[in-house]
Amino acid sequence: MREGNHACVPPRPSIPPADHPPMLSAALTEDIALVARWRQVRRHTDHLAAALSDEDQCIQSMPDASPAKWHRAHTTWFFEQFVLGPNLPGYEAFDGRFSYLFNSYYEQVGPRHARPHRGLLTRPSATEVGAYRAHVDAAMERLLEREAAPELAELVELGLQHEQQHQELLVTDLLHAFSFNPLRPAMLPDWREPPAPSRETAAMQPLEGGIVRIGALHSGFAFDNERPCHDALVPAGRISSQLVRNAEWCAFIADGGYRQPLLWMAEGWAAAQQEGWEAPLHWEKRDSQWWQMTPGGLRPLDPVAPVRHVSWYEADAFARWAGKRLPTEEEWETAARRRLLEDAGRFVWEWTGSAYRPYPGFRPPPGAVGEYNGKFMINTMVLRGGSLATPPGHARLTYRNFFHPDKRWQFTGLRLAEEL
Amino acid sequence: MREGNHACVPPRPSIPPADHPPMLSAALTEDIALVARWRQVRRHTDHLAAALSDEDQCIQSMPDASPAKWHRAHTTWFFEQFVLGPNLPGYEAFDGRFSYLFNSYYEQVGPRHARPHRGLLTRPSATEVGAYRAHVDAAMERLLEREAAPELAELVELGLQHEQQHQELLVTDLLHAFSFNPLRPAMLPDWREPPAPSRETAAMQPLEGGIVRIGALHSGFAFDNERPCHDALVPAGRISSQLVRNAEWCAFIADGGYRQPLLWMAEGWAAAQQEGWEAPLHWEKRDSQWWQMTPGGLRPLDPVAPVRHVSWYEADAFARWAGKRLPTEEEWETAARRRLLEDAGRFVWEWTGSAYRPYPGFRPPPGAVGEYNGKFMINTMVLRGGSLATPPGHARLTYRNFFHPDKRWQFTGLRLAEEL
Amino acid sequence: MREGNHACVPPRPSIPPADHPPMLSAALTEDIALVARWRQVRRHTDHLAAALSDEDQCIQSMPDASPAKWHRAHTTWFFEQFVLGPNLPGYEAFDGRFSYLFNSYYEQVGPRHARPHRGLLTRPSATEVGAYRAHVDAAMERLLEREAAPELAELVELGLQHEQQHQELLVTDLLHAFSFNPLRPAMLPDWREPPAPSRETAAMQPLEGGIVRIGALHSGFAFDNERPCHDALVPAGRISSQLVRNAEWCAFIADGGYRQPLLWMAEGWAAAQQEGWEAPLHWEKRDSQWWQMTPGGLRPLDPVAPVRHVSWYEADAFARWAGKRLPTEEEWETAARRRLLEDAGRFVWEWTGSAYRPYPGFRPPPGAVGEYNGKFMINTMVLRGGSLATPPGHARLTYRNFFHPDKRWQFTGLRLAEEL
Amino acid sequence: MREGNHACVPPRPSIPPADHPPMLSAALTEDIALVARWRQVRRHTDHLAAALSDEDQCIQSMPDASPAKWHRAHTTWFFEQFVLGPNLPGYEAFDGRFSYLFNSYYEQVGPRHARPHRGLLTRPSATEVGAYRAHVDAAMERLLEREAAPELAELVELGLQHEQQHQELLVTDLLHAFSFNPLRPAMLPDWREPPAPSRETAAMQPLEGGIVRIGALHSGFAFDNERPCHDALVPAGRISSQLVRNAEWCAFIADGGYRQPLLWMAEGWAAAQQEGWEAPLHWEKRDSQWWQMTPGGLRPLDPVAPVRHVSWYEADAFARWAGKRLPTEEEWETAARRRLLEDAGRFVWEWTGSAYRPYPGFRPPPGAVGEYNGKFMINTMVLRGGSLATPPGHARLTYRNFFHPDKRWQFTGLRLAEEL
Repeated sequence: MREGNHACVPPRPSIPPADHPPMLSAALTEDIALVARWRQVRRHTDHLAAALSDEDQCIQSMPDASPAKWHRAHTTWFFEQFVLGPNLPGYEAFDGRFSYLFNSYYEQVGPRHARPHRGLLTRPSATEVGAYRAHVDAAMERLLEREAAPELAELVELGLQHEQQHQELLVTDLLHAFSFNPLRPAMLPDWREPPAPSRETAAMQPLEGGIVRIGALHSGFAFDNERPCHDALVPAGRISSQLVRNAEWCAFIADGGYRQPLLWMAEGWAAAQQEGWEAPLHWEKRDSQWWQMTPGGLRPLDPVAPVRHVSWYEADAFARWAGKRLPTEEEWETAARRRLLEDAGRFVWEWTGSAYRPYPGFRPPPGAVGEYNGKFMINTMVLRGGSLATPPGHARLTYRNFFHPDKRWQFTGLRLAEEL
Repeated sequence: MREGNHACVPPRPSIPPADHPPMLSAALTEDIALVARWRQVRRHTDHLAAALSDEDQCIQSMPDASPAKWHRAHTTWFFEQFVLGPNLPGYEAFDGRFSYLFNSYYEQVGPRHARPHRGLLTRPSATEVGAYRAHVDAAMERLLEREAAPELAELVELGLQHEQQHQELLVTDLLHAFSFNPLRPAMLPDWREPPAPSRETAAMQPLEGGIVRIGALHSGFAFDNERPCHDALVPAGRISSQLVRNAEWCAFIADGGYRQPLLWMAEGWAAAQQEGWEAPLHWEKRDSQWWQMTPGGLRPLDPVAPVRHVSWYEADAFARWAGKRLPTEEEWETAARRRLLEDAGRFVWEWTGSAYRPYPGFRPPPGAVGEYNGKFMINTMVLRGGSLATPPGHARLTYRNFFHPDKRWQFTGLRLAEEL
Repeated sequence: MREGNHACVPPRPSIPPADHPPMLSAALTEDIALVARWRQVRRHTDHLAAALSDEDQCIQSMPDASPAKWHRAHTTWFFEQFVLGPNLPGYEAFDGRFSYLFNSYYEQVGPRHARPHRGLLTRPSATEVGAYRAHVDAAMERLLEREAAPELAELVELGLQHEQQHQELLVTDLLHAFSFNPLRPAMLPDWREPPAPSRETAAMQPLEGGIVRIGALHSGFAFDNERPCHDALVPAGRISSQLVRNAEWCAFIADGGYRQPLLWMAEGWAAAQQEGWEAPLHWEKRDSQWWQMTPGGLRPLDPVAPVRHVSWYEADAFARWAGKRLPTEEEWETAARRRLLEDAGRFVWEWTGSAYRPYPGFRPPPGAVGEYNGKFMINTMVLRGGSLATPPGHARLTYRNFFHPDKRWQFTGLRLAEEL
Repeated sequence: MREGNHACVPPRPSIPPADHPPMLSAALTEDIALVARWRQVRRHTDHLAAALSDEDQCIQSMPDASPAKWHRAHTTWFFEQFVLGPNLPGYEAFDGRFSYLFNSYYEQVGPRHARPHRGLLTRPSATEVGAYRAHVDAAMERLLEREAAPELAELVELGLQHEQQHQELLVTDLLHAFSFNPLRPAMLPDWREPPAPSRETAAMQPLEGGIVRIGALHSGFAFDNERPCHDALVPAGRISSQLVRNAEWCAFIADGGYRQPLLWMAEGWAAAQQEGWEAPLHWEKRDSQWWQMTPGGLRPLDPVAPVRHVSWYEADAFARWAGKRLPTEEEWETAARRRLLEDAGRFVWEWTGSAYRPYPGFRPPPGAVGEYNGKFMINTMVLRGGSLATPPGHARLTYRNFFHPDKRWQFTGLRLAEEL
């Protein structure tokens, strides 16, 4: 039956606040004023890039990834294109050519620089991008002081949430790029692993079935893909209170998990063979010990830390090996709302068993921002929760992240579920 | 609320019997004796290949497709491998090497001939494959006469259903291969378009929402992916009583449907650009008229026939252009059960908006037949209904077909739906 | 100094007559009448295909290769296109569509069927191709009886030489296709290895340096790429009287020849790694013994037979391992003329150290036949001699064969040379 | 007949001294002391990179190209690896990991960083590479002061010539990378086109045939591929005193040169179609005028400047269109020695009709430097002369440059020749 106590309540962040590493330390709360929030988010982006050289900010290690400098410029372009241009009379663009350079994928905005060539943009320099950010920041502050229309606030909030998404990508993309460097550099030399969750054995928590309410209500910010709020039917089952840990993954490896095709989806097995997967991405064996490439450089693998950098294919195979399965996104959201997931949102994005498709009644907003999510709702799988690279305050119970099932460069792990 | 009148009723074929073209004429009913059914299905395979030369039976036009001869041999191998070997004492394999040659993808059975090289197997010849079929047929008849254990009957039925699936593939694969031949040969010169459905304008039929029962019950044959039967929640909406027709597709083309990225999923648009799609597969413009490659060769396009050979990407873009969407597989199954779909199952497989994933509680059967469906439940979309190439009696209300969203060589079309 | 005794002598076939296997048994001499020669060459093509099924004739194992049926039709098309059409009044083409289907690469003749799709042409059937050959044969005989202009005779001779080239390709292409068949079929079950050459150890024969005459004179047939006859300067050196044998190649393998990058050209090493080369093509180890795929099926490797199916990269690496090098084509032609090469022309085409480029003063003939050779004079290496698949009477001292340095599917081997 | 006046004379630079643009201004003569020459060459490298930002120095636009920083480090590594390590007692490597990072292709030296990943090396930084250069420079000066063995001087000279080769690559690689930047940046804002050669119409100069001496003698520096000096036979012919100019290339374009397959080698035509060639690389049409990307940014095309950035395929097609051909490298060297080529060596490398193969008697030197040239002597064509990016004093009459026939990113043009 329907969860009565949910129907009228806006989605609150039931994910416990993280004890975040220094890189991600800014504390954000929902009720700060928009200007203050504006400054905090924008500063956090520059904070993440502060320790990077101009060269570090320029490179792109694969078409999926983007240079740090590009992230800094693209998030700025978003405000110039969608907020300042239409709303601040007399606003002059910093450089007319940036619209072409820093548009990511918005067809309605016009042609754009080819994605795989982003890493060749040595000009504008990182310094010029800094000036671009300052130019837009100043104009935005002027705008925010004089103008408080709710529609504008909503658009600015979208831009900030968008920038937070790129903050996470900035970290994962650079980690990927640095993993190709034989020197294994550290983005953040002082970075440390988040404190391990409870060392108790994971418990399979009962999850009562029935009709549940899924998705975001109208109040409060949410991306379009989290709406409309709708009913869904979940079966009775169980879900683990904890994420799968590295030690468990080592047992999977030792038991031949990467050599047994019957554990895998056919296309997952083909990918594993073609790419030569034998462990999660960023794992590296030296003198018969596992090490892991992290934002702090190469570190010994921590056995109690939740596993990360596994593809959906690997997560799915692991679950089958364990005699269980991945939870659906509806199960996950329901369990999180019921506070059954003790370590959600602080370590890794969690692969679910749900393909990323629109919710019933989904309508993208009109205009270019309507391209934000809808056109990617195929061939990808939903992830829930959040990761150690997710900016604090960004993730929500109803948040739907999504990647292709073969992707491994994000902080992606899993939790197990089963039917009764 | 739950559909009470469904809960205890085995899935009956509510799809109206087709007025099938000669190629697909055999009438099958569920209650004929197993031996009679055995003969009928096996004969139908040979009937489909009867008009083909040995050369025609040998070729493979892409890795997705298989040669006609290979289909004839692989369906035979299935009985030898899974039925005769374990169940008929003293059975001698026709040729010990065929297990390697004609295994499709069963990892538990051992190594196998590489799929993209199937078209190089000129030996064994089509004649030898005929002898192989006769050898297995004779042994199967001996077995079926003396043995009537339900488990065996179930396995034989699986083999026959499997063979029927390959009968459809045999037609689509050869149509694809012949489409590369500048002579545009006809597989079946006497083939004619199935009689057009009602020429009335399609009506959007109301579909009441609520909890419905989805999937196959325990009695009667069904593939493992149709089970377990379970409850699902469908929203209130509307669904078209008719499939989208060629004339409507021509309007989509004329309105720039293939040139407007905002109608498309991002990956669909990329595929359309890369492959140069401007119309459905097998459409060909000659002197400003559309023609279509069919089992009967190149024919003028029939404007009232349901559109076929479109990818999911195209179907999805068309639905968006029409201001509607594809139905989910649950909506489709519910509407079909309520007899709202006047032309389902006789023309084309219908793309749904549902990703192909396991039903709640899905458990593949033990042993190699457990590889039948489960390992393909990723990256594909569900199709429902059936096509003009589906053998009569094969499709069911609960049948779940699946292909990748870029595939076009099957007889694939669509019907529209919308929320209230 | 210049070879005085050569200047005025037409190129005689100094290559000793081969004791050919049954497949290649037709004896051809230069002085038979054109009609008789016509019949002999045409019959030989059909003889090669006689043991093949229609299926065998239809397949294509890679874009470099063509189906046997296509070879039979294309060689026939050559006469229809270039000889009958322009010269036999009232000639009616067998089928107007064949010009599109069976043109290989002649841009001046019009568009053509894509090369990689040749293996999909199940229609016209092998039987129809036989009828096509008969139709053209009859017309050609009518033409040859009434018309004896030297220009026509020259064109017919070009067509026959062209057909002989395709006879060799028919053998190599089908051997390649059959090598993918796990049954390892024999094209010619009665085929046997040509009698081994002398079992004496190879002698390095002195080769006096100086100016030599290279290429074909005006009398007698030669391809355009063998002309003009011109002077070249060869250095004093030595050349082996014998081809490299399988036993020597086994020593190269045993000594790590395929694992030592310093023996290889950089691009050769890259190809060897990417393709996983560990022995010549068509070698296969079973129970620690080498076997070889031959026109007679899989046979134990004969240690005294000349090595075949090696790429230029492998031949070059072997020569470096042996402390020697490949001869240039000028050295080869000079040594062959001086009868220093005891086994030339009967076993394998010999890779030379010469890139395939036009001779000084080369002018392709006007019209479409000018596309015969000239446009391929880049990125390929010259081979000299002939192979066991070369039709008797086809090869000449001045003959220039050519393939890319990574190709292995021809009967290609090597002989060694060195400077003084 | 043999050129008597050449036999005992060391190769003098008959190429007239260039009026070089500022970028390439350093004047070098053969007789300066080695230390002075050392300083000059090393300084020139840093001079070329002086105007580049750290980001500019880091990027790699294709596997063929390398980052500027990598060129600066690799040329330094060459001295550390081959000169300092073996010859300076007590020398300590700057950083032991650089041997892995900055080895280009020397198999004997050990494993190395994958070439396509050079553009991801943000660490070590450009500043650290500068420190690396200073460290090696200081050690080299110590060595050069105390040690004057001829073998060492020869090795140092090889290192300097090697560095000069990379100076040219640094310019061409960065020009290529900048061409992807929509801002079309200038490497050297003050750069100007070299003064045009004579505006007189090109004259076809007679070239007397006979035996000529080709290649470098033992005295004076030359790469191993220029030796041994040997006799060659050149036919009587004519060669143009001037390079082909942009205006002539425009006529080729206007006459359909890029649309007429009969002008092209078959593989050249395929490359042109696949890559969409319609003009030389770095040409760009804006408002129906041609512009050209240069080291000084985007500039209007100069009609009298020699054409550059054409592939061998294009050069060969142009020559055929003009009714002529490319000269062989022997013809070129002979004509240059006879001072028939008025503009050689100052504008563009000239494609020849000669495949890059070893001279008769070629023996690479022992040890790792033996990998310098020999292993690339396949699949490439010889270029002669030099370009506006070639450091002054680097090119020689006997110099053999080489690239694959489809490459266009170098400063490559052509001159015409013909037989009598």
